[in-house]
Amino acid sequence: QGPGGHAGNHGGAGNSDTSSANSSSGTHGGHANFRGGGEVDHARNGFDPHEILRDFDWGRTRRLPSGRVLREWTLVAGDQDIEVAPGVTFPAWSYNGRIPGPTLRCREGERLRIRFENLSQHPHTIHFHGIHTAEMDGVPGIGAGEIAPGSSTVYEFDAEPAGLHLYHCHVRPLAEHIAKGMYGAFIVDPKEGREDADEMVMVMNGFDTNFDRANELYAANTIPFAYMNRPIAVRRNELVRVYIVNILEYDLINSFHLHGNFFDYFPTGTSLRPSELTDTVMLCQGQRGIAEWRFPSPGKYMFHAHQSEFTELGWQGFFEVG
Amino acid sequence: QGPGGHAGNHGGAGNSDTSSANSSSGTHGGHANFRGGGEVDHARNGFDPHEILRDFDWGRTRRLPSGRVLREWTLVAGDQDIEVAPGVTFPAWSYNGRIPGPTLRCREGERLRIRFENLSQHPHTIHFHGIHTAEMDGVPGIGAGEIAPGSSTVYEFDAEPAGLHLYHCHVRPLAEHIAKGMYGAFIVDPKEGREDADEMVMVMNGFDTNFDRANELYAANTIPFAYMNRPIAVRRNELVRVYIVNILEYDLINSFHLHGNFFDYFPTGTSLRPSELTDTVMLCQGQRGIAEWRFPSPGKYMFHAHQSEFTELGWQGFFEVG
Amino acid sequence: QGPGGHAGNHGGAGNSDTSSANSSSGTHGGHANFRGGGEVDHARNGFDPHEILRDFDWGRTRRLPSGRVLREWTLVAGDQDIEVAPGVTFPAWSYNGRIPGPTLRCREGERLRIRFENLSQHPHTIHFHGIHTAEMDGVPGIGAGEIAPGSSTVYEFDAEPAGLHLYHCHVRPLAEHIAKGMYGAFIVDPKEGREDADEMVMVMNGFDTNFDRANELYAANTIPFAYMNRPIAVRRNELVRVYIVNILEYDLINSFHLHGNFFDYFPTGTSLRPSELTDTVMLCQGQRGIAEWRFPSPGKYMFHAHQSEFTELGWQGFFEVG
Ligand SMILES: [Cu+2]
Ligand SMILES: [Cu+2]
Ligand SMILES: [Cu+2]
Ligand SMILES: [Cu+2]
Ligand SMILES: [Cu+2]
Ligand SMILES: [Cu+2]
Ligand code: NA
Ligand code: NA
Ligand code: NA
Ligand code: NA
Ligand code: NA
Ligand code: NA
Ligand SMILES: [Zn+2]
Ligand SMILES: [Zn+2]
Ligand SMILES: [Zn+2]
Ligand SMILES: [Zn+2]
Ligand SMILES: [Zn+2]
Ligand SMILES: [Zn+2]
Ligand SMILES: [Zn+2]
Ligand SMILES: [Zn+2]
Ligand SMILES: [Zn+2]
Repeated sequence: QGPGGHAGNHGGAGNSDTSSANSSSGTHGGHANFRGGGEVDHARNGFDPHEILRDFDWGRTRRLPSGRVLREWTLVAGDQDIEVAPGVTFPAWSYNGRIPGPTLRCREGERLRIRFENLSQHPHTIHFHGIHTAEMDGVPGIGAGEIAPGSSTVYEFDAEPAGLHLYHCHVRPLAEHIAKGMYGAFIVDPKEGREDADEMVMVMNGFDTNFDRANELYAANTIPFAYMNRPIAVRRNELVRVYIVNILEYDLINSFHLHGNFFDYFPTGTSLRPSELTDTVMLCQGQRGIAEWRFPSPGKYMFHAHQSEFTELGWQGFFEVG
Repeated sequence: QGPGGHAGNHGGAGNSDTSSANSSSGTHGGHANFRGGGEVDHARNGFDPHEILRDFDWGRTRRLPSGRVLREWTLVAGDQDIEVAPGVTFPAWSYNGRIPGPTLRCREGERLRIRFENLSQHPHTIHFHGIHTAEMDGVPGIGAGEIAPGSSTVYEFDAEPAGLHLYHCHVRPLAEHIAKGMYGAFIVDPKEGREDADEMVMVMNGFDTNFDRANELYAANTIPFAYMNRPIAVRRNELVRVYIVNILEYDLINSFHLHGNFFDYFPTGTSLRPSELTDTVMLCQGQRGIAEWRFPSPGKYMFHAHQSEFTELGWQGFFEVG
Repeated sequence: QGPGGHAGNHGGAGNSDTSSANSSSGTHGGHANFRGGGEVDHARNGFDPHEILRDFDWGRTRRLPSGRVLREWTLVAGDQDIEVAPGVTFPAWSYNGRIPGPTLRCREGERLRIRFENLSQHPHTIHFHGIHTAEMDGVPGIGAGEIAPGSSTVYEFDAEPAGLHLYHCHVRPLAEHIAKGMYGAFIVDPKEGREDADEMVMVMNGFDTNFDRANELYAANTIPFAYMNRPIAVRRNELVRVYIVNILEYDLINSFHLHGNFFDYFPTGTSLRPSELTDTVMLCQGQRGIAEWRFPSPGKYMFHAHQSEFTELGWQGFFEVG
């Protein structure tokens, strides 16, 4: 089958491959088509959404005299042009040269130390969602406050509570410092651990490429259609665990919808009991949750926002079950 | 009482009947008034929201050699002008000549077979929320993919999981194929059944009558104010169960608010334990949930979105408790 | 530290005090700056957000012949110009001369009687979220219906269910009567009571100061930045309980985010078991919930909407832990 018998005006819809999404630019919708013109140069960007997906940064650890684990990372802020869609360059601000920044991962109860160096031309901070003192909160005017270009600071606190959290810059204008790309996932594993799984992180974001405070591009892990162009390979019957964080700026909500399957959902990841068995969850900025499921059957299964606009502008992908 | 003593500019607000909603067009708000000019011609539309409300389509069943139940439906896509408000015609696409499409209902564990014929001038699919193989997912490029005008296919899968789900076309542009009217509710009864109740389905939707990717009309089950003009009759102390599905396109969220009463809410309907006792729930597109309550007292009780704009543009109704 | 080394265009960002929020007007964002020009005249407004925060109106009580408690209040609607930001006057409609109206508080199972007098130039009602008969619902056309200027009525019902609710005017245009300021919190304490705590109410709202059906100002309890300019003093390790109500008009959602700490969240307050441990909750208009936590460490902790625009336009504050 296909649209061959259709005499309508659907543009490139004759393409039988799903990756022709959004090809009917101008005809039915009102948005430009960022697909079809090749792929983003991940090497030049310095990061690849497929690597970010399963890249958990455990930092370096050593024992404190008390016997407790001290876990340390260094995060460096920088100014960086990235190709967010084929031929579309965005003047980003990033942590460690990637968007989203590194997925910081640790275990409940450890002592965490994050050295922050600002090599950007703009003042920045790291604000963590989590429990910590005011001095370590990464907001302007308190503790180290805004970290000037060329300056650095150290954030230190305990890893609590167990769950899925996030970090982001808190310098004003807030919308700009977030929309520019300064955020990442922060995972605190519960003491008892979680069941073995094929784990992934998806930071749902978007880009305002023309600076009108509205997004032209949407994605999980920055690059629109990255997981459509190359599906995420997973194994049948293996537990899949996706750490979902919404940091999308300008749009009031975002969502995650899985095709053909249902997942247990753990909002904020703070409880070991799921709140719901569903296929669609909605999050505002700063919300996050853990989704767990197994694919009983092989094949390609879509996942995407259940906001058609976000989907069509890049926030969609495939799991390919082998 | 009434606004008789008020020298202000409230337009038709002197009307003591609640059905004069939105009558102060132009004065306080910025929206045209679609009320007051009579009622939609339900017979010409070929469907009536009052019939859709309690119309559950159980299809036809037979026993498979294994003893299991096979449940079958035929869904036909078509192009159809409908009167969405008095004098306002909308060039819709529909399943089985109605919007929302038939409420497909079955029991957990049955085998389901849906024959889909496309008599529309446009390619379409049926994508079900539920557990099924990739081939049966109703997305372009996989399995039967897009079903061309004049073509047909069969979707087949098991009825799982128990809960309240939905189906909709997944042809691109997604926003258009949804906004045109191609969706319906899909109920999988749990094996143990649910308590006897006065059951209803409300598919929350809207219409973009001027094609600017924003809605001018909002409703449950398509026709604005239908349950204001003629309240839904229910019995005192009887259990009411409403299957609420949000498929609204263009607006990021929708909601259901009940007046004077509280309901148990079962998100996605997948658990038999309610998540909350409340009077207001919010859903993004694709989310759905079951609300249950009893009216202890007679009278007319409003229900509506708790977004004033949606309410005023049609998404409001009455329960009349006898 | 500070932005001293930064040669950029951040306007007043050299100010090391956090209360310089939103000072970079025009440069990075697109919004006017309502800060910096002094403070609102709370005395002239007739209410202060710091007083509203912990002001619970228990009304007057007496025993009915049956031995049951009758609890009574009088609410008066009026037209009132208020200074919503320094130098910005808004022609509001209010209950009892304040926005939000009084936080009505009672105990589950009591009989409640609310006398309503309309001294405004416009018709109004009080619609309560809660369980009551249709006649007492405060909607046009039913029971007393719209209360004309100079008229009055009495609403009477039982205090149920236990939880956090709200009340608001239900006269059309709904959006206007809400946006003008006609709302307040309504708390029904459970029979068994709640644990002792430092209790507060935050009614999340906003103001459309140029009447274009979009907000220029956001706040908890009406006055933008009120709890930034003067932080909310709380005690270390004491239980804090915040009754959070979202009544924001025009924007589809709102949220509450707490810095450096996590709270137990009780949606609608109807269950004594929290649904989630988190630091961010999202609410649509009419939704509400109770947040409980203790601050283990001294210092200043921000709270705000996790929608950057709302934050920057006033919906942010500090807890100062002594
Ligand atoms: Cu077409
Ligand atoms: Cu920054
Ligand atoms: Cu008026
Ligand atoms: Cu279609
Ligand atoms: Cu700058
Ligand atoms: Cu009013
Ligand atoms: Na833009
Ligand atoms: Na957009
Ligand atoms: Na429109
Ligand atoms: Na609209
Ligand atoms: Na405005
Ligand atoms: Na706004
Ligand atoms: Zn789906
Ligand atoms: Zn889909
Ligand atoms: Zn945050
Ligand atoms: Zn209500
Ligand atoms: Zn209402
Ligand atoms: Zn869907
Ligand atoms: Zn935070
Ligand atoms: Zn913050
Ligand atoms: Zn309400």
